[in-house]
Amino acid sequence: MSLSSTTTIWAELRHADASEVPFLRVMIHQLANYVNLPHLCSASDASLLSSLFPSPPLPPFFSFTTLLLHLSSVPPLPSPQTLSITSLSLSFPSPIADPDRSAFSSPLRKDDHTIAGFIICFPRYSTYLAKPGLHIEDVFVREPWRRKGLGRFMITAVAKKAAEMGMGRVEWCVLDWNSNAKAFYESMGAVVLSEQRLCRFSGPALERFKSGNGEERKEDDSM
Amino acid sequence: MSLSSTTTIWAELRHADASEVPFLRVMIHQLANYVNLPHLCSASDASLLSSLFPSPPLPPFFSFTTLLLHLSSVPPLPSPQTLSITSLSLSFPSPIADPDRSAFSSPLRKDDHTIAGFIICFPRYSTYLAKPGLHIEDVFVREPWRRKGLGRFMITAVAKKAAEMGMGRVEWCVLDWNSNAKAFYESMGAVVLSEQRLCRFSGPALERFKSGNGEERKEDDSM
Repeated sequence: MSLSSTTTIWAELRHADASEVPFLRVMIHQLANYVNLPHLCSASDASLLSSLFPSPPLPPFFSFTTLLLHLSSVPPLPSPQTLSITSLSLSFPSPIADPDRSAFSSPLRKDDHTIAGFIICFPRYSTYLAKPGLHIEDVFVREPWRRKGLGRFMITAVAKKAAEMGMGRVEWCVLDWNSNAKAFYESMGAVVLSEQRLCRFSGPALERFKSGNGEERKEDDSM
Repeated sequence: MSLSSTTTIWAELRHADASEVPFLRVMIHQLANYVNLPHLCSASDASLLSSLFPSPPLPPFFSFTTLLLHLSSVPPLPSPQTLSITSLSLSFPSPIADPDRSAFSSPLRKDDHTIAGFIICFPRYSTYLAKPGLHIEDVFVREPWRRKGLGRFMITAVAKKAAEMGMGRVEWCVLDWNSNAKAFYESMGAVVLSEQRLCRFSGPALERFKSGNGEERKEDDSM
C-alpha cells in the first residue's frame, strides 16, 4: 500500500445561466465579507439578473460575462456553455470538507457536482493598441476549495480565450497591500502597474451630475 | 469702451462617425507623445475603424464609445449625434492660435469648426453594486485648447449621461505622480483610490496562454 495517494477532481469553467444567479449572489456576498466590505455590497438576485443577463443576451466576452466554476468527481460532459475543463490531483489525506456543497448544486446539472467559484469579466478598450482587451472584475473561490489551483485555472482559461480572440491585454485590480496576491499574479506572468491610480465618481458625487450642477467651469482647469 | 472683453466659443461633444477616424488617430498619437509613450502606440485608421466601429454598430454606452469635441464660433445645431453642447467665454486678449485648425475639419460639417479633442469610454461592471458603470479610457484636448474647461466639459457630459442611465460609478485612471490631474479630478468630486493596483497580461505574457503553457498548476497558489 502506497503512503501517498491522490484523488482527482474535475473542474469546469462554464458560462452562467440566469437560473444560477442565486449561487452567484451568495458568493458575491461571501467575497464582500472576505474583503471586509459587506456594507458596500447590495447585489440582489433581481439586480444581478437584470444587469448580467439582459434580453436579448449579448455574445460572451463582448459584454459582461459571468463564468461559474463547477467541480465534480467524474469528468463533466462538455456543453456549449463550457469554456474550459481541467483535472486536479489532490493529495491524501485531504478530504475536502465543504459544508455548503449541497447548497451549491446547479438545477442545470443532474450529476454530482458543486459550484465552487466564479469569475466576472468584460471587454475594455486600449486606445494605444486600438484593440479590445478583457477586464477581470472578480475571481472568487469558495473557502474550502482555495489554494488548489482553481484561481489559476479560471484566470488561465479566460486569458487563453482573450489571446485567442486577438485581444491585446487582460487586466484586473489587486489591493496594493495584498502581497500574496501580487506574487501569485506575477508568477503567472502579470505586471503590476505601480503608477496607475483608479479615480471614481460614485454615490452623491455621481448623482450631482444629473442636475447639471457639475457643469460650472473653473478657471484652474488643467485640461 | 470696456477694458475687458470676451469671445464666445461653442463646444459640442458628439458621437464620432467612422469617417472621422483619421482625426481620432492623429489625436491618439498626439496623446501618446504628450505622455512620452509614442513607442507604445500602434493605432492605425484600420485598427481603430474595426475595433471602434463594428458592423452592425452597438448602442452607445453599451460598448466602446467614441466622442469628439467640436468647437465653433456659432452655436451648433444639435443632431442625433450630440451628447452635450456648452458655450465658453474666453477673455481677451486671447486669440487662440491653432495651426492645425483647418486639418481638423470634419467632412460631416459644413460650418466653420474644428475638432479639438476626444473621449473614449466603455461600460464596466461593479459586482458589489450589481450595476454597470462607465470607464473613461482617455480624455484628450489638443494643445491650443487646453486649460479652458474643455476636459471638464467632456467628463461632465459623460458623467451626466452615466448618472441618467442609472449607472453606479464612473471610473478612469490617473498617473500617481500627476498631482495636477489628481487635484483637478478631486475638484470635480472624484475619489482617487490609493490601494488599487492594475495588473496586466500583455504581449508575450498574454500570447503564451494561447498554447496552453499557462495551465500548469503550482502548489503555492493563493487561490
